[in-house]
Amino acid sequence: MANPLPRAITVLSGGMGGAKFLQGLLHGIRTGTVPASDDAVVTVVANTADDLWIHGLKVCPDLDTVMYTLGDGIDPERGWGRREETWSVKDELATYGVEPTWFGLGDRDIATHLVRTQMLEAGYPLSAVTTALCQRWLTPAYGDSLRLLPMTDDRVETHVAIADAEAPSGRRVIHFQEYWVRLRAEVPAEALAFVGLDDSSPAPGVVEAITGADLVIVPPSNPVVSVGTILGVPGIREALLETTAPVVGLSPIVGESHVRGMAEQMLTSIGVEVSAAGVAGHYGARSRGGVLDGWLVDERDADQVARIEQAGLRAAAVPLMMTDHPATARMAAAAMALAQ
Amino acid sequence: MANPLPRAITVLSGGMGGAKFLQGLLHGIRTGTVPASDDAVVTVVANTADDLWIHGLKVCPDLDTVMYTLGDGIDPERGWGRREETWSVKDELATYGVEPTWFGLGDRDIATHLVRTQMLEAGYPLSAVTTALCQRWLTPAYGDSLRLLPMTDDRVETHVAIADAEAPSGRRVIHFQEYWVRLRAEVPAEALAFVGLDDSSPAPGVVEAITGADLVIVPPSNPVVSVGTILGVPGIREALLETTAPVVGLSPIVGESHVRGMAEQMLTSIGVEVSAAGVAGHYGARSRGGVLDGWLVDERDADQVARIEQAGLRAAAVPLMMTDHPATARMAAAAMALAQ
Repeated sequence: MANPLPRAITVLSGGMGGAKFLQGLLHGIRTGTVPASDDAVVTVVANTADDLWIHGLKVCPDLDTVMYTLGDGIDPERGWGRREETWSVKDELATYGVEPTWFGLGDRDIATHLVRTQMLEAGYPLSAVTTALCQRWLTPAYGDSLRLLPMTDDRVETHVAIADAEAPSGRRVIHFQEYWVRLRAEVPAEALAFVGLDDSSPAPGVVEAITGADLVIVPPSNPVVSVGTILGVPGIREALLETTAPVVGLSPIVGESHVRGMAEQMLTSIGVEVSAAGVAGHYGARSRGGVLDGWLVDERDADQVARIEQAGLRAAAVPLMMTDHPATARMAAAAMALAQ
Repeated sequence: MANPLPRAITVLSGGMGGAKFLQGLLHGIRTGTVPASDDAVVTVVANTADDLWIHGLKVCPDLDTVMYTLGDGIDPERGWGRREETWSVKDELATYGVEPTWFGLGDRDIATHLVRTQMLEAGYPLSAVTTALCQRWLTPAYGDSLRLLPMTDDRVETHVAIADAEAPSGRRVIHFQEYWVRLRAEVPAEALAFVGLDDSSPAPGVVEAITGADLVIVPPSNPVVSVGTILGVPGIREALLETTAPVVGLSPIVGESHVRGMAEQMLTSIGVEVSAAGVAGHYGARSRGGVLDGWLVDERDADQVARIEQAGLRAAAVPLMMTDHPATARMAAAAMALAQ
């Protein structure tokens, strides 16, 4: 007898890669490409370790990228921020000479941050704020079939140490967003510091979304600064070890590079081989204390399947290019098949 | 021998009326219509009692109207806010369903409020924040010849009681901006409450700008909620009694109505006759414990001059319509002549 169709699907997501995967997954569920129960609920646990305070506003890039993407408000060209965006505030701040100028805060986007900042300052936790924002973005289209949770309500911030010959220590530590947006990850990341991560707790519903899942998916998000930080919230890794649901991941690395993003730099900084098999080994098999049961690699990396299986994981090679929703839905379906 | 030309000129200003008067005064000084020393310094003490916190931002309507107007950033049609403004944030906040929606926060304007709010939250007093903002708006054109000071660094907020049959008390108390912007002052103001005013102190430089002035001008601003609140800051009225400078005002009331604004409603709410002479009596002559030495009325109110003189004030009737900078400069020149 076949396994029943999964009802509770939980996805541990970063920003752009995760959001694009989720679009395909939801498209696949809607069209039947991805076999799931009629009352399937997708719960997204989103990374918040690249959040930042800027110009007095709390900005949550990954949460917002997922929210805007699935709520059809994203700018599809940039992959972040709002469609039909205007930039008056940014221009004015620059005219005032206010730093930093490298972070792209659009006017429409700022409204989101104003609402969030006010709710946080009124004492609401980020998870409640996110639910409130999703009333606009997700509820109309998805009702109760899609939930977006921050990994934690606590403040966690990723900082990056880079070489700086002018600094007394020879190093400068900058916020991840400065490394990513201003420096475009073009200098080596010598070390990473996940400020607040060890003392954080999973947001309400996160542990239950994992332990109560029928399937957990790790999309092709950054294994270090997106999925890695989610796994770093004390209690989340434990929930993944505990759940009876299969946990399957999709490699963000195809060949020797990250399809979208800068996983190479991040993996190198923590000493992980930049390859599909390298990342699989980094996550590790649940049977051996890791977090995954299965790992999908791109067909071009089919020669790595045997090595991944030797690490205790199921593995398969399929096309992993998220060129459109149907292609991405087929990736999600392949992940689900690997999990069966 | 004629009096020396005034060097230190201090103006107690509200928003639009004060800003327009100041434009004319500065135009007159520049063109020679208004006789003043070559090194004249105009100090504006601006009302801050209609400031508000909205969407987490500290907004100072009168300070900003003066700053934008004199810095050539004002929208000349509206008379408030920025030229070439965009409204993306406002649209988005409305789409989120966030209240209030009646206050017009433009995108360019929001940048000012973001800078201000951040500096205030960093611990800078409003006067220091205002100086910082004026580095952009006033310093390039005016150098040290123009200073903009808030009346106080303390939080003062004007609230208005209006009739409300549905409220248990029969009244509802709302922020002045809600009365002015949302209700357009179309219902009677039953009472005014100047929250924080009695406990406020003049901002640094305000008392000295009055006691050290060669001339103090009360422009045709609202006598109750603009000039009245400035005079209500403990220490400012005393400085006006102490200064050796003449203090002259220009009536905001022409005939029986306020040229721009809603002084009628405000005067009525405090039981003052809505006329040029009524306002003169409300301010009172310095020789009799009031704040003015002279009072200019519009030529149409020439019949009130004798009554104003009986109240102990010098008075004259001249055209008081600020139709353009030269006309307004002539008003300033007439005020100066009255002071001699």
